[in-house]
Amino acid sequence: MENRKQVAVDLKRVTVQDGFWSGVQNLVMDVVIPYQKQILEDAVPGVEKSHAIENFRIAAGESQGEFYGMVFQDSDVAKWLEAVAYSLVLRPNAELEKEADEVIALVGRAQEPDGYLDTYFTVKEPEHKWQNLQECHELYCAGHMIEAGVAYYQATGKTALLDIVRKNADLICSRFGKDKTRGVPGHQEIELALLRLYDVTGEKKYLETAQYFLEERGVEPEYFAEEKKRLDWKHFDMDPADRDYAQTYAPVKQQTKAVGHSVRAGYMYTAMAHLAAETGDEEMTAACRTLWNNVVQQKMYVTGGVGSTVHGEAFSADYELPNDLVYAETCASAAMIFFARRMLELEPKGEYADIMEKELYNGLLSGMQLDGKRFFYVNPLEVVPGVSGKLREYRHVLPVRPQWYACACCPPNVARTVTSLGQYAWGENEDTVYAHLFLGGKVSCQNGAAISCRSEYPWNGRVSYTVETAKDFTFAIRIPGWCKKWEIKVDGQEIPVEVRDGYALLHRAWKAGSVVELSLDMQPRRIYANTKVRADAGCVALARGPVVYCVEQVDNGAELSALRLPRTAEISVAASKDERIGNVPTLTAKGFRLHTSDALYSEEPPVEEAASLTAVPYFTWGNRGPGEMRVWIPECEK
Amino acid sequence: MENRKQVAVDLKRVTVQDGFWSGVQNLVMDVVIPYQKQILEDAVPGVEKSHAIENFRIAAGESQGEFYGMVFQDSDVAKWLEAVAYSLVLRPNAELEKEADEVIALVGRAQEPDGYLDTYFTVKEPEHKWQNLQECHELYCAGHMIEAGVAYYQATGKTALLDIVRKNADLICSRFGKDKTRGVPGHQEIELALLRLYDVTGEKKYLETAQYFLEERGVEPEYFAEEKKRLDWKHFDMDPADRDYAQTYAPVKQQTKAVGHSVRAGYMYTAMAHLAAETGDEEMTAACRTLWNNVVQQKMYVTGGVGSTVHGEAFSADYELPNDLVYAETCASAAMIFFARRMLELEPKGEYADIMEKELYNGLLSGMQLDGKRFFYVNPLEVVPGVSGKLREYRHVLPVRPQWYACACCPPNVARTVTSLGQYAWGENEDTVYAHLFLGGKVSCQNGAAISCRSEYPWNGRVSYTVETAKDFTFAIRIPGWCKKWEIKVDGQEIPVEVRDGYALLHRAWKAGSVVELSLDMQPRRIYANTKVRADAGCVALARGPVVYCVEQVDNGAELSALRLPRTAEISVAASKDERIGNVPTLTAKGFRLHTSDALYSEEPPVEEAASLTAVPYFTWGNRGPGEMRVWIPECEK
Repeated sequence: MENRKQVAVDLKRVTVQDGFWSGVQNLVMDVVIPYQKQILEDAVPGVEKSHAIENFRIAAGESQGEFYGMVFQDSDVAKWLEAVAYSLVLRPNAELEKEADEVIALVGRAQEPDGYLDTYFTVKEPEHKWQNLQECHELYCAGHMIEAGVAYYQATGKTALLDIVRKNADLICSRFGKDKTRGVPGHQEIELALLRLYDVTGEKKYLETAQYFLEERGVEPEYFAEEKKRLDWKHFDMDPADRDYAQTYAPVKQQTKAVGHSVRAGYMYTAMAHLAAETGDEEMTAACRTLWNNVVQQKMYVTGGVGSTVHGEAFSADYELPNDLVYAETCASAAMIFFARRMLELEPKGEYADIMEKELYNGLLSGMQLDGKRFFYVNPLEVVPGVSGKLREYRHVLPVRPQWYACACCPPNVARTVTSLGQYAWGENEDTVYAHLFLGGKVSCQNGAAISCRSEYPWNGRVSYTVETAKDFTFAIRIPGWCKKWEIKVDGQEIPVEVRDGYALLHRAWKAGSVVELSLDMQPRRIYANTKVRADAGCVALARGPVVYCVEQVDNGAELSALRLPRTAEISVAASKDERIGNVPTLTAKGFRLHTSDALYSEEPPVEEAASLTAVPYFTWGNRGPGEMRVWIPECEK
Repeated sequence: MENRKQVAVDLKRVTVQDGFWSGVQNLVMDVVIPYQKQILEDAVPGVEKSHAIENFRIAAGESQGEFYGMVFQDSDVAKWLEAVAYSLVLRPNAELEKEADEVIALVGRAQEPDGYLDTYFTVKEPEHKWQNLQECHELYCAGHMIEAGVAYYQATGKTALLDIVRKNADLICSRFGKDKTRGVPGHQEIELALLRLYDVTGEKKYLETAQYFLEERGVEPEYFAEEKKRLDWKHFDMDPADRDYAQTYAPVKQQTKAVGHSVRAGYMYTAMAHLAAETGDEEMTAACRTLWNNVVQQKMYVTGGVGSTVHGEAFSADYELPNDLVYAETCASAAMIFFARRMLELEPKGEYADIMEKELYNGLLSGMQLDGKRFFYVNPLEVVPGVSGKLREYRHVLPVRPQWYACACCPPNVARTVTSLGQYAWGENEDTVYAHLFLGGKVSCQNGAAISCRSEYPWNGRVSYTVETAKDFTFAIRIPGWCKKWEIKVDGQEIPVEVRDGYALLHRAWKAGSVVELSLDMQPRRIYANTKVRADAGCVALARGPVVYCVEQVDNGAELSALRLPRTAEISVAASKDERIGNVPTLTAKGFRLHTSDALYSEEPPVEEAASLTAVPYFTWGNRGPGEMRVWIPECEK
């Protein structure tokens, strides 16, 4: 890891005791993880059948029947195991660990002697292994199981799953590469997984194969087109001529535009940044920066959502960010968190952590109902019942979170990201500790520094750190990009602070017990979109701290597009009286509601009536029954 | 026709000499009709192949080869013949008439001995005749040829085509009906055509079969579902369970919502109103009014466009009128003109003629390039190059008119509507002459009244009528709904006028040479949409007289959504200096353009810069190369 500027602190070195996130983590541990296990076992009536565990039983020869589900159904099991691993770090749970060990043993029994591991092909089409990489997700499933194996090993020290996935990875590495069989993954994932496997094993071939998969993509003659010529069967009906969808339009180092399926893209960029941080490859680093900027500066919703179109669940044109047609898949927000983490390791700049934070409090969290029982795949910024989820163009934009999905990628992505939050919160290198997020709890770094944190973030801007052991190091505390007024005190003294790349750098020989108090101004903020974003013309969005707000029908009545928020109206903060959204701070302002006659068109301008506007945190939307919602509120100049 | 309150004046009794429309009619006669003939003959290189005439030759046994084109390809020939018929009334043309006579003779030779006439089935699937009414358009093609036959007879007095279509109609009437074979047309058209055939022949069975087709629709067990059960083949893959698409969700008299394919709907409503006007059926009349109001008061763009979604080229939810995803097919605007004409015959109210006028000057005319050589199928209200016509959701919204379409329904619909304009302009009954439109020229009514009209409409509100023969009658001049200030003088004297249902009623014993001067205030107008139309929130549209305006990039620069038109800014009228749009009056105002930094999101509100806004008539848009366009202009309150 010699080229990385800083690395995430190992999860086992982090404890989380946070007024906000501990609750979410407990929800994931108490509700989501057990619920997902039940779903994987088909024990929840009335939801989409999973069959994922049963597929492993059939592959292991321990059950009769047919494979059922998506060709990538195995990945649901892998992502569950990965989330379990992180949860065991947060909170030991012997029963859950036993359950996981049993699933791992089953996965092992489903593995073929040569290391091959994919129940779809083992059970259903053994003659078609490795042939249709574009469509069949074998490398994707392998990647997720590798991530699970790495996480489970790191969490428990147990090697059973790590051994399984290494055997599978060894098979993959022996098969694919320069002077071996040519191959490019249809859905990127194996690349970042092999890099994680390299990190824990130090085995160079894992890094080399990841690099091969990345660098072979988009190289002429394009692999998927070649593969298609060879095949006399298909699984989906993907067209290799669509070179945007799976980012095959150019070799990755030459890619400058974020295009195509946004989760594929995000996973690929994550691997690119990971590899660049590892190797110091300048060309790869430059490509990562270019792609990051294109996503963040041209293609990201204010909530952190990415992917503007359902067609290909994909990125769209620059500045084309429709709020109602939106895709903004929960998984794509997770992918942006992964990408941001790796960019931070490449170069610790606050702009990356800003986006990580934006995703965590908005685009990712909105994917889960507040009770942990229902999930969004698509996270819209404007919802209108009767249109959203109903009319053909808007059918993917559901106004209420469903219980589960046939393609169940998003809920487990929330679970594994939330449970592994510690690794996004803290970073370290030889002489520095980075506080990327303001996560309450404690960190004991490999470099010897130990710091505890008390935080009421995101609702309150006061964060207090206590240095636990005497040591000479730099404490780098992120100053969020959204924060214009802040203050740092060390042991009660306000001190001048050097800020570089978004981090306040406190160099000193710290004494045990030293207290660093950070105070971030939490005034509600108005956000305006670039005029190139036609969907947001005339509108303003509200945020407070890292939390983006939205207006809902339940608080403001129907026809939210008839509301007007005056540019200069004072915005007040008050705790919600509504327990259904957890009494979170709401924003209120005196504004207007427009009225017109019943006529469809009229020469009479709309008439303004005074109205009180109430906005709630975006991530809490859709928890109070169906109704209109919008993030961008029409503004008036009064 | 005893129940009709007034009827369109026979085209042969109307001459057109109009500063605006004569030019459009000449364009259709000089360019469109010859061009369409060339296309029907496949003589235009580089455009979609038609093969329509060749299909008739093959069916007649005079040429070898395969049928080519849509199953309704014959209708292109029919619509061309209908337009030719109207053009011959406007301007005799022996050569064109000879060409048409030859095509008619060919159509006759392609007709089967029993009267059957549909080249697709004659040539390609003779075993499948009349079996798949839902998908196969036999009755639709028959309807269009009947319309052509009626028009050609009325124009030329020649019966060749009328005889052909009567033989075909007789076959249809002998086959379908109560106590005969059950059938419902998949694409409504035959109904209105049979009613027209009834009008010229007085043959009751044509009316009865039209009534049967109308009243059988939506009756349980639903016909298309029954038909589908019977069939072991399909042509398209239409699902009879979609009972909106072809308006089968209820018997027509019980329908209250405009749904489904908007051209099908419009043709059906036209026939319903025609039948109701003929029979005086109160229930049918009520249904027509309800459907009219739903279209006009909930589902119509300010340009007259109808059909908000490409999916099914269909009506959408009430008030769901997206400007960029829009369908607003040119044919649907034509259908609304037909519907309006029949509603006027049912009850002469200005609100119907208002819509007829709105369609003529906006939604219909925008379908044709100003040089008559290119055509829109879809008429958007917001166009953004790089998005419109390019991104998947917007692929149907072309920013530039194409030369022709594989499904070539729209261009001939423009041609036949424009050439028959006289029948929309004037109406009569025993004692009244109606001036629905302000069309320059002359009318000699069946009731004996003769009136000439001089008009500079739509650019000027002064219209002058001269009564040509002494007669006691009521002259009913429409006062447009958009006009708030107007004045009528008779022989130079301002007179008090009774206005009823949108018509100024001038009863008197007219002297030959009496002059009626109408003066309509042509101040530019601001139009606001109902707040339920979220797509138009915060925006204003401009109109002058019947003409709706739009802003284009060529006049205003790119990023039209960054323009702001102050609510109180004076709007000036000036002739365009741009010959490419015919030096039409433009509207200009002092407004603003917003600027933001390069950032995607910022806390800095956009900065206003003074900007001059220029709007041009909507129907002229897209005649000056590709660029942005929008009808709804963001408003500010300054």
